[in-house]
Amino acid sequence: MITSPNLELSPEAMQRMGESYLRAIVDHLTNLPQSPRSNLDNAAEIARALREPAPQSGTPVDELLQFLMQRVIPHSINSAHPAYLGYIPGGGLFPSAVAEFLAAAVNRYVGVWYAAPAAARLETNALEWFAEFMGYPAGTRGIFTSGGSLANFSAVIAARKHILNENISAGTIYLSDQTHHCVMKAAMLAGIPERNIRVLKSDEYFRAVPEFFELAIKADLKNGLRPFMIVGNAGTTNTGAIDPLRELAELSEKYSLWYHIDGAYGGFFNLCEEGKRKLLGVERSDSIVLDPHKGLFVPYGCGSLLVKDGERLRRSHVLKADYLQDQFTPEDETNFSEYSPELTRPFRGLQVWLPLKMFGVPAFRENLAEKLRLTEWMYERFLAEPGFECLSVPELSVITFRYRPLRGDIAAFNRRLQAFIMKSGKLFLSSTILKGQFAIRVCILSFRTHQTEVEEAFEVIKWAKEEVEKTD
Amino acid sequence: MITSPNLELSPEAMQRMGESYLRAIVDHLTNLPQSPRSNLDNAAEIARALREPAPQSGTPVDELLQFLMQRVIPHSINSAHPAYLGYIPGGGLFPSAVAEFLAAAVNRYVGVWYAAPAAARLETNALEWFAEFMGYPAGTRGIFTSGGSLANFSAVIAARKHILNENISAGTIYLSDQTHHCVMKAAMLAGIPERNIRVLKSDEYFRAVPEFFELAIKADLKNGLRPFMIVGNAGTTNTGAIDPLRELAELSEKYSLWYHIDGAYGGFFNLCEEGKRKLLGVERSDSIVLDPHKGLFVPYGCGSLLVKDGERLRRSHVLKADYLQDQFTPEDETNFSEYSPELTRPFRGLQVWLPLKMFGVPAFRENLAEKLRLTEWMYERFLAEPGFECLSVPELSVITFRYRPLRGDIAAFNRRLQAFIMKSGKLFLSSTILKGQFAIRVCILSFRTHQTEVEEAFEVIKWAKEEVEKTD
Repeated sequence: MITSPNLELSPEAMQRMGESYLRAIVDHLTNLPQSPRSNLDNAAEIARALREPAPQSGTPVDELLQFLMQRVIPHSINSAHPAYLGYIPGGGLFPSAVAEFLAAAVNRYVGVWYAAPAAARLETNALEWFAEFMGYPAGTRGIFTSGGSLANFSAVIAARKHILNENISAGTIYLSDQTHHCVMKAAMLAGIPERNIRVLKSDEYFRAVPEFFELAIKADLKNGLRPFMIVGNAGTTNTGAIDPLRELAELSEKYSLWYHIDGAYGGFFNLCEEGKRKLLGVERSDSIVLDPHKGLFVPYGCGSLLVKDGERLRRSHVLKADYLQDQFTPEDETNFSEYSPELTRPFRGLQVWLPLKMFGVPAFRENLAEKLRLTEWMYERFLAEPGFECLSVPELSVITFRYRPLRGDIAAFNRRLQAFIMKSGKLFLSSTILKGQFAIRVCILSFRTHQTEVEEAFEVIKWAKEEVEKTD
Repeated sequence: MITSPNLELSPEAMQRMGESYLRAIVDHLTNLPQSPRSNLDNAAEIARALREPAPQSGTPVDELLQFLMQRVIPHSINSAHPAYLGYIPGGGLFPSAVAEFLAAAVNRYVGVWYAAPAAARLETNALEWFAEFMGYPAGTRGIFTSGGSLANFSAVIAARKHILNENISAGTIYLSDQTHHCVMKAAMLAGIPERNIRVLKSDEYFRAVPEFFELAIKADLKNGLRPFMIVGNAGTTNTGAIDPLRELAELSEKYSLWYHIDGAYGGFFNLCEEGKRKLLGVERSDSIVLDPHKGLFVPYGCGSLLVKDGERLRRSHVLKADYLQDQFTPEDETNFSEYSPELTRPFRGLQVWLPLKMFGVPAFRENLAEKLRLTEWMYERFLAEPGFECLSVPELSVITFRYRPLRGDIAAFNRRLQAFIMKSGKLFLSSTILKGQFAIRVCILSFRTHQTEVEEAFEVIKWAKEEVEKTD
């Protein structure tokens, strides 16, 4: 008899393990508001202490749980916290985490329609809802990705195939200096020469300037290059600025270019009326990236791409193989691996589908509208507060600010201010550089962030400013 | 007061939801052996019936669970089943599913070291263990990916940057006709012209022929092209064939090419002595892809890439941005987003780390050795069984076979045989084309597949053959 150690747990052991991990998760989330916003003290030493050789024997499952909850998870930026206002927060909905559990446990193969047709249909439903949210027509096809980076990458691939085909090295791409660096990275991964990426100066409101785009396009055409793609932002990571989406659409049409919008951060604001007004023209793009792990609050690891003419996405990603010969897909369904760089991949759409079904779309719409209003509220506080100034006018849910100390270097003071805030464990904010100036950023997007948290955050910032001033 | 609907569940509601989903999962896995191996009847109609507009109101969470377990999950190929021997199985370890739950619930940001240093260290540990498994030295760096496709893609990007830099269109790549199509897709995504991909005939054992590689390299050099990458298989998806890894290493050294091995399916067999003997030379590659969702049995959505000179992987994927200015990484730790196309992405290493710690490496080693022995056992049965013939000699855990009916078309008979087996719900096998011949494939790799399942599978195949013969 050929045998080996059993890696299948008994039903009782599964139940026990599931229960103890569930309890730890519920405790963790229940205590979230009281937990530190970040804990990066001695991070390098703590990480180093976790090094160990490959385990030659097993460890009890509850010991591992304790290890994770005490020695691993706490030593981090607490990106799930209601007062996490750094980078782009989302929170991480509990039902999505449950969906991940279920998806991994049943282990269905959703990258190929034929292998899990009903599961693939749920993902397709969610993507069709996204198309509707954005005013995209029937015929749109989309994919779920691990995040915005790979979603933007597939957009570049679709544009490249459609316009350049194999004439890749002549292709030029146009984007503002406020565009997320993953778009430039996507272009470089796709083989577009770095010298052909036109990073164009944004205006005083950090928005793309269509005139600069057009000048660059004309110059490139004159030099025998092949302009193929314009990228608009809705909105930018730095300040939440929304590019002039309609003007960029017209420019793309005039020169027959692919018009892509990076809406990873801001696209889902189109769900609410306030956002829709700001995002006018978004529906005129050829493709758009939307990150559910931002605007739909699901855990990290879920981006998406929509392409208006779905066939263009397919043509740029499809390749056949003998060992897949059994597979077929009906015309009105989607075989995702033909639209994506991925073949095997997780059933990641479930973490979007489940909370949308559970809460309904209006709950998300109202949460997004709330974030816009909270941002306005806080922005007005900053304007009214002596010594503080904002470095951008918020269009969506990002505020950038700094304090002008009575004396000394402004940037140095604000670096100390940001570090002090982080060290306090009361609030997490990240920073950036705007037109050469150091700025502290506030981004209000977690579903856990409500008026109380925003008011507290503002008080923490004022308090921290006073504390830092004292030590000056 | 600015408010919105609360998307945070109460502790009681979280506990309740978690418990009911956990119970359903444990039931599902407990009943797995009795459930159908596949259920694709009326798949198109069933998928179509699931279409629905975006939900305008919520649905109770247990109703959604019932819907998923009854109307979605069962209509699929049951890729978690012990008798799923199609494509490349893995099974999907329960502890990994729990890890996914925990990772999503705590929602840490592991793509950037600075944001979750301890969690990033756990991923680094697991990748360092992989390096040790493969005989790779210190200095190796790796990434977890969603699967083999994107892992192979990053290997091409690293090779492209290292050897071609921006001279992409002259680059040529060499691989056998048995190489997984995702490698060719990866090259095309990376901007390598399709005309520069040399797909070279394999030998009678479906292995790469170094002489053909060298002839092609010489011809390309003569034509002013720039050979940059050789891809070896360990082993192939079609038959599990292992390319002559040492000869390919020598060829790569002779012409200073990047030597990549696609070990997505077979690389982890290097853990056991029997596998190690077959994979001699694997350690001489510059990079290797390993899929934990195959050889380590974790759920779908986990591939990995190791690059021996880690700095080459970093240089090909790094790009900086102002809004990331707060971040730093100590020299001896890994900031994954600098090594990967991804920035935000899931904490996917936890689903590998947890079962390795829980069971220890020897349990995996013995499971892999068992699969090799089970394959030999079944192969001998096929050789001894009148009318059956194998179309390849198994080196790892893939068997390809067909039945030679007394009269009529061989391929047509075997297509009917495969369809009959699938329809029976007793066993799942996929098929392929080998040297123009239709072949049925058996791949033994799920941790749930033991001697009983393999014996049963063989009986099902014999029974099905007789049934199909009757209807002839």
